[in-house]
Amino acid sequence: MASNRGVAYVEPGKVEIQSIPFPELVTPAGKTAGHGVILKVLSTNICGSDQHMVRGRTTAPTGLILGHEITGEVLEVGRDVENMKKGDLVSVPFNVACGRCRTCKEQDTGVCLTVNPSRAGGAYGYVDMGGWIGGQAEYVMVPYADFNLLKFPDRDQAIEKIRDLTCLSDILPTGFHGAVTAGVGPGSTVYVAGAGPVGLAAAASARLLGAAVVIVGDLNADRLAHAKKVGFEVVDVSLDTPLGDQIAAILGTPEVDCAIDAVGFEARGHGHSGSQVEAPATVLNSLMNITRPAGKIGIPGLYVTEDPGAHDKAAQTGSLSVRFGLGWAKSHSFFTGQTPVMKYNRALMQAILWDRINIAEVVGVQVITLDDAPRGYHEFDLGAPKKFVIDPHGQLGAQRKAA
Amino acid sequence: MASNRGVAYVEPGKVEIQSIPFPELVTPAGKTAGHGVILKVLSTNICGSDQHMVRGRTTAPTGLILGHEITGEVLEVGRDVENMKKGDLVSVPFNVACGRCRTCKEQDTGVCLTVNPSRAGGAYGYVDMGGWIGGQAEYVMVPYADFNLLKFPDRDQAIEKIRDLTCLSDILPTGFHGAVTAGVGPGSTVYVAGAGPVGLAAAASARLLGAAVVIVGDLNADRLAHAKKVGFEVVDVSLDTPLGDQIAAILGTPEVDCAIDAVGFEARGHGHSGSQVEAPATVLNSLMNITRPAGKIGIPGLYVTEDPGAHDKAAQTGSLSVRFGLGWAKSHSFFTGQTPVMKYNRALMQAILWDRINIAEVVGVQVITLDDAPRGYHEFDLGAPKKFVIDPHGQLGAQRKAA
Amino acid sequence: MASNRGVAYVEPGKVEIQSIPFPELVTPAGKTAGHGVILKVLSTNICGSDQHMVRGRTTAPTGLILGHEITGEVLEVGRDVENMKKGDLVSVPFNVACGRCRTCKEQDTGVCLTVNPSRAGGAYGYVDMGGWIGGQAEYVMVPYADFNLLKFPDRDQAIEKIRDLTCLSDILPTGFHGAVTAGVGPGSTVYVAGAGPVGLAAAASARLLGAAVVIVGDLNADRLAHAKKVGFEVVDVSLDTPLGDQIAAILGTPEVDCAIDAVGFEARGHGHSGSQVEAPATVLNSLMNITRPAGKIGIPGLYVTEDPGAHDKAAQTGSLSVRFGLGWAKSHSFFTGQTPVMKYNRALMQAILWDRINIAEVVGVQVITLDDAPRGYHEFDLGAPKKFVIDPHGQLGAQRKAA
Amino acid sequence: MASNRGVAYVEPGKVEIQSIPFPELVTPAGKTAGHGVILKVLSTNICGSDQHMVRGRTTAPTGLILGHEITGEVLEVGRDVENMKKGDLVSVPFNVACGRCRTCKEQDTGVCLTVNPSRAGGAYGYVDMGGWIGGQAEYVMVPYADFNLLKFPDRDQAIEKIRDLTCLSDILPTGFHGAVTAGVGPGSTVYVAGAGPVGLAAAASARLLGAAVVIVGDLNADRLAHAKKVGFEVVDVSLDTPLGDQIAAILGTPEVDCAIDAVGFEARGHGHSGSQVEAPATVLNSLMNITRPAGKIGIPGLYVTEDPGAHDKAAQTGSLSVRFGLGWAKSHSFFTGQTPVMKYNRALMQAILWDRINIAEVVGVQVITLDDAPRGYHEFDLGAPKKFVIDPHGQLGAQRKAA
Repeated sequence: MASNRGVAYVEPGKVEIQSIPFPELVTPAGKTAGHGVILKVLSTNICGSDQHMVRGRTTAPTGLILGHEITGEVLEVGRDVENMKKGDLVSVPFNVACGRCRTCKEQDTGVCLTVNPSRAGGAYGYVDMGGWIGGQAEYVMVPYADFNLLKFPDRDQAIEKIRDLTCLSDILPTGFHGAVTAGVGPGSTVYVAGAGPVGLAAAASARLLGAAVVIVGDLNADRLAHAKKVGFEVVDVSLDTPLGDQIAAILGTPEVDCAIDAVGFEARGHGHSGSQVEAPATVLNSLMNITRPAGKIGIPGLYVTEDPGAHDKAAQTGSLSVRFGLGWAKSHSFFTGQTPVMKYNRALMQAILWDRINIAEVVGVQVITLDDAPRGYHEFDLGAPKKFVIDPHGQLGAQRKAA
Repeated sequence: MASNRGVAYVEPGKVEIQSIPFPELVTPAGKTAGHGVILKVLSTNICGSDQHMVRGRTTAPTGLILGHEITGEVLEVGRDVENMKKGDLVSVPFNVACGRCRTCKEQDTGVCLTVNPSRAGGAYGYVDMGGWIGGQAEYVMVPYADFNLLKFPDRDQAIEKIRDLTCLSDILPTGFHGAVTAGVGPGSTVYVAGAGPVGLAAAASARLLGAAVVIVGDLNADRLAHAKKVGFEVVDVSLDTPLGDQIAAILGTPEVDCAIDAVGFEARGHGHSGSQVEAPATVLNSLMNITRPAGKIGIPGLYVTEDPGAHDKAAQTGSLSVRFGLGWAKSHSFFTGQTPVMKYNRALMQAILWDRINIAEVVGVQVITLDDAPRGYHEFDLGAPKKFVIDPHGQLGAQRKAA
Repeated sequence: MASNRGVAYVEPGKVEIQSIPFPELVTPAGKTAGHGVILKVLSTNICGSDQHMVRGRTTAPTGLILGHEITGEVLEVGRDVENMKKGDLVSVPFNVACGRCRTCKEQDTGVCLTVNPSRAGGAYGYVDMGGWIGGQAEYVMVPYADFNLLKFPDRDQAIEKIRDLTCLSDILPTGFHGAVTAGVGPGSTVYVAGAGPVGLAAAASARLLGAAVVIVGDLNADRLAHAKKVGFEVVDVSLDTPLGDQIAAILGTPEVDCAIDAVGFEARGHGHSGSQVEAPATVLNSLMNITRPAGKIGIPGLYVTEDPGAHDKAAQTGSLSVRFGLGWAKSHSFFTGQTPVMKYNRALMQAILWDRINIAEVVGVQVITLDDAPRGYHEFDLGAPKKFVIDPHGQLGAQRKAA
Repeated sequence: MASNRGVAYVEPGKVEIQSIPFPELVTPAGKTAGHGVILKVLSTNICGSDQHMVRGRTTAPTGLILGHEITGEVLEVGRDVENMKKGDLVSVPFNVACGRCRTCKEQDTGVCLTVNPSRAGGAYGYVDMGGWIGGQAEYVMVPYADFNLLKFPDRDQAIEKIRDLTCLSDILPTGFHGAVTAGVGPGSTVYVAGAGPVGLAAAASARLLGAAVVIVGDLNADRLAHAKKVGFEVVDVSLDTPLGDQIAAILGTPEVDCAIDAVGFEARGHGHSGSQVEAPATVLNSLMNITRPAGKIGIPGLYVTEDPGAHDKAAQTGSLSVRFGLGWAKSHSFFTGQTPVMKYNRALMQAILWDRINIAEVVGVQVITLDDAPRGYHEFDLGAPKKFVIDPHGQLGAQRKAA
């Protein structure tokens, strides 16, 4: 049991499977983590924000073990863990959180004040997020386990629904947070920018929240076709028809009640020529256009403080040319930041266990082996309408794809 | 057009259709209502709270024209009406509200301060609610029309969905208010006391709000069978098995997240012998038992200030023996009162128009003629799992039932 | 240092100072509490709810060490404690809470699910609240210290303001919770039933929250005089003038925006003759009378599930004759339960440290020695307008009163 | 009574008093306004946003009658007005709102959908806000009077406190909205950017809301001196010491809980050289720096959709270079738009009438005659720490200043 293997970032465009140390109950700072557990990873997903690192858009160092979307089985518990025991199946929120600081106590676990010495907020396997080792691996350590872990009530039921439950570590709560902060409720009309997994999760969340109609926009035809297949209205922002007109064709009015930015800083322009180039404020600006007065804009899509790879000099330090005056004139409010997963994951687990949300189907979960992770990264980067879920121990039935 | 006919309360147990004056743009106090409209009634529903009057449980006078659940077509507009015009199809919130007082401005239209000189809150066709003439009639006057009316966006679509839209005037928002105040959201486990129309509307609302599972309890076997057929879990409170045990058999735990009292002051006891007698605090007390710590209890079921027909002397002045200490120990909160329909009806209309809620099917809408209203009252009083909708002009296809 | 002394409940009407064991890092169930700390008690207050036990109104056993309002200095830290260190001055919320269960994570620390095997919610030194040893002692153990403790930022400043800061463990947050749940905000008119320490804390909280005017009602003349002296309007409910009339004399209207019940189940009737006898629903019923339509009623006053000493049979099991129909007609909502102190104490500490609230003066803090605690209990029971604060180590300057 | 005089915008830098028509109960579109009243103006204030027009930063036409901060006496009521009568003293929210559209019903009266054909939201005397004639005049028409007007309960009391009550039409609710949306509550630490009247009103509101400490920043020494005199902490952003360092000197930490932008699009840079030039995103960017993780930023300061006079080309269409990535990393939320005055004015009136807020003193109310309005505009533009209140009928005791 002392061996371990994980997905390592090597260089822009390249990840590989490496042998890595078996996890210990020790923090990145070298302190004993009596509050932690060692998990045998049951499933661990590739995330769009991993791609930012792999594309070389960050300062992630070579050798960083990736993976912050983790579901696992408790293998070993620290001396101060009270509520978790060997054999429990659990979902791990991607935010590392201590449960003891002011922001954690106020449910803002996305900006825990203690787990990352360089700034508020920690995550597994992510640059500048506290040095916690990633979970795209066979085994991983999770600190503050009593606080962080969400235990599934029934093991067999959990295994049966694992393709859905694996979405609880990040993508489903993240989409849900976007929908909640955008003010989605029964009867809302909703626009979601981005048909990647977070966008689809936001759309599915909006539906769960009772939205009357959910429109998903993207410029990738495959993703739009998938979004349509799973029941959403779609608009193609690579067309020259303005977004408002496309929305009006569906709703009879060019504005929606609620808007969600599930794209973030790597946005491209709208329209035929615009869509060829990065234009980081495009989504935000278009959302102000198509959101009703007094509407809210939820922004789960990632915006960064430093983006050395940006084409635009201002964007390299995270500055965007936002048409703020338009939002102000319409009394908009804007909600940003890492999703505090714990605020939502228990409720969303219940929704999955009682068959109220088919998130795996909506986001296109595809289970792959650990060794196939590099292929998963590559295909996802090309825009495949898939959510790749790594199955490190073959417990989900992933088959190594023949070469 | 100067003729009119309506459903009048005659004496305990008896209503009849009477010729009544054609409505005028005048308030009960005799003032000109330039802000009002005359509606041709398209549909008007019989409500459980009408039954309180018809059973003789109130001081309603002979000749009172019943009906506070009204959907209609604008026939004539007052001189100060700006946004409504002849031919518009509209839903009328059962609360009469002025839109100009403090509580209306704060969205608490259920307790408007100006439309009822004797206390806060007005309604059509109801004793002690301001003297506004009821709408179980061919024509009715609605004051403060720009404020009160909800216009359907498309006439043909509205006619097509009228069996659902007719529920917007009271029952659907009332059930929804119960669910919202009980804190129902995605993933909630919910118990609804009462499988009558309000209970079913609360259950449907809970589902729309994303509840994981909704359990409906009643002691009427037909109503339970209907509730089950339309997709809810059910428990039979006439059994001697304690409610908590029945809930545990479904959920694995004897407590729910959220509880809704859709029964009110005419509650009967639980268990085989208890169910034979009125026991007005039974529902409230049982809900404290089965609601989780820190849970909320929504109480759309009507409790009255005077109940001369109560068996219990205290209950005659609206006093109940509430096990308040239990609720306190569990940190419960309790939400009462007439639903402020306007807070919800627009969103719920959207949910209906986009096929997110099948409220007519859930509550068992049955359309009847105006002349059949007495039969509707009678059958509903016997506990039929139906929501009777009167079709005064035969526009919904109601046929007079052969004798 | 291995010695310890504490205030023990002996029999109805009697407490005494006893030698007790020095605390250990062990839970009531006998498990090691690596998450706990040992505190040297700096100050610990006598609470009205302690009186319920001392009056014999509960099943508290002889020998129970009292005290749940604790401020102290960290003397020893468990192995899993990360953020507290020897010498820190801290406030202890009266709720024992684990920080790891569902309700704690949702900030409902008043009903923690793990610290009390018999029901939700734990407290120090209180019957049926989990067996945690009370803090009216020289030393006490506090579990889950990183989660529970509020550290004062500066030691000298804390000592200087200790008479105010000692109110953070219970009374100030409890009054504040009453005010917040009653919906108090800038410009509110507020009625507080009860001029004991919780009522005064609620009144002070309402003022801090921006209330326009705060009216305190009681039947104890000394307490009313004190309430008036510290700046509140007062009404005397032992008079035969109805409460609404007394309020109208101040406000010009017989209703307030917000009402707070700071009395609880040991209420007496209103009016000259009524005030001679216990009438447990009096306060609740009177608050429905004088609260405006759509108003909220915050209920920090304790109501119990079992009250063997009640005169009224129903009240012995916590059932009260509540005029619920009146509240329903006015669309009231009701908020009960133990205050989740942690939700508020940090903010209230800031308000104290920046001189925004003079809580010690408002509640009449009087510092006494540990040996004087029995006298404090006695005087408080007689209705003295005081908040007795025990100073076990003489660090606050308490002087033993000469016999 | 048929004569009238008002303050007209003439050209950049110039306003003058002109004879204008006596108001009629007619809307800008020429329709009869039976819902309106004619007011005799008791007081009407000069606002910072009037300056935007007078400085020539908008497309305001010559002859526009200015003034959206109006307090008056009802002189004549339209036929549909029910609750106002001749002689009532009233405060007029600066937003013109119909009370009948979706946004008004949801309390978002700042973006009423019907009173301005060109976009959501109307105001008196303001370019592009619906053409409603301004109230810096002797008489003015107010539409939808029952909905819009706030009646003072007692005439004599109102006259006595008129210097405070005159702030209810805009500035106090606007500052309050900034504080509320920034999440200010008891114990908060607050930074307000801008020591003009809105900034000071935000600061006073924060204090009313219970803030522990309020820091006001500006680069105008007179305004800072005034802010200090009325009880706030101050920082001088024209210094080269970074804002965070100045805040840390006061709080011991460089971050506040809540931040309010009371400056808007005409912001200047920080630091000695920066403060010489306009830098429209400076305030927003600095607030992200100094607001704690998970904090909220309230933005009552005006940002515009078109600013032809901006130095920067992007700013001419309301685009700003916002360091959005920083806000995202800190999980900030941002709240913009015209304040919906009606949501707050009643409560704030109560706070004034019960002496809980000394807003006139805080903002430096100075009463002037109508003829002195041009001087008021000029002095205010120079940065005088004053709030000029015009007294058109000499009822507040303004004296014409000798030439």
